[in-house]
Amino acid sequence: MNFQIKPIGYIESPFKKLSDIPKQSIYGKDKRAVINILDEYVLGIRDIKEGAYIILLFYFNKSKGYKLLQVPRDSNDFKGVFSTRSPFRPNSIGMSIVKVISIKNKNLIEIEGVDMLNKTPVIDIKPYIPELNPKDEEL
Amino acid sequence: MNFQIKPIGYIESPFKKLSDIPKQSIYGKDKRAVINILDEYVLGIRDIKEGAYIILLFYFNKSKGYKLLQVPRDSNDFKGVFSTRSPFRPNSIGMSIVKVISIKNKNLIEIEGVDMLNKTPVIDIKPYIPELNPKDEEL
Repeated sequence: MNFQIKPIGYIESPFKKLSDIPKQSIYGKDKRAVINILDEYVLGIRDIKEGAYIILLFYFNKSKGYKLLQVPRDSNDFKGVFSTRSPFRPNSIGMSIVKVISIKNKNLIEIEGVDMLNKTPVIDIKPYIPELNPKDEEL
Repeated sequence: MNFQIKPIGYIESPFKKLSDIPKQSIYGKDKRAVINILDEYVLGIRDIKEGAYIILLFYFNKSKGYKLLQVPRDSNDFKGVFSTRSPFRPNSIGMSIVKVISIKNKNLIEIEGVDMLNKTPVIDIKPYIPELNPKDEEL
């Protein structure tokens, strides 16, 4: 039983190839990009505010295949793929928390903290709600 | 250009119908559930540890259709869907941060903090990395 996922927009980013991309968005804070929302979904971003953080789900459309055990970039040891953020996973979905810098022309969300390749399909945006995170003392 | 997503496992939860489900996983802390990982992906969860928090991506397979403006349960006003956690979204993907209670038989991840319907397809698991969240003073 498979499911169909469709882009709601595309990333316009300075990263043209995989080797340009910082390992996690936190390391790309100085880099900005734009989410260009497709016309049919523009109304859905109406309440996204400048200065807010949002959760982006995107599709690693350049990642072919996966391995269940992989050596992460910051390690020498194999790890189960579901304990890594590797793009080479059974479903090629990535997640990043990014800051909204500005919204232009109703459909362009300028963001900071980018680790996505140019033209990456965005599949969902969710509000970042810190109250849904575990508390520090629970970790 | 659409993408195919496939289940990596299924939720076994006490919630048999939509009205049983707490609004966000944080309100369901006393409720436990099990992620039953499909045989072909079991090796990928090898490094998930008891006591850790994980990010679950799942497919709202009971949610039909979407609206770009919706009234969230905690509000009286319409909001753009991408500023809500509503299951009725263009791509029916949900996200929850849950705590791993135990791992049994190599393929059963017992979790706490559940807001998923029984038999919900799980499509990805990612490690929860608090360092990737915005700092309190940035919010």
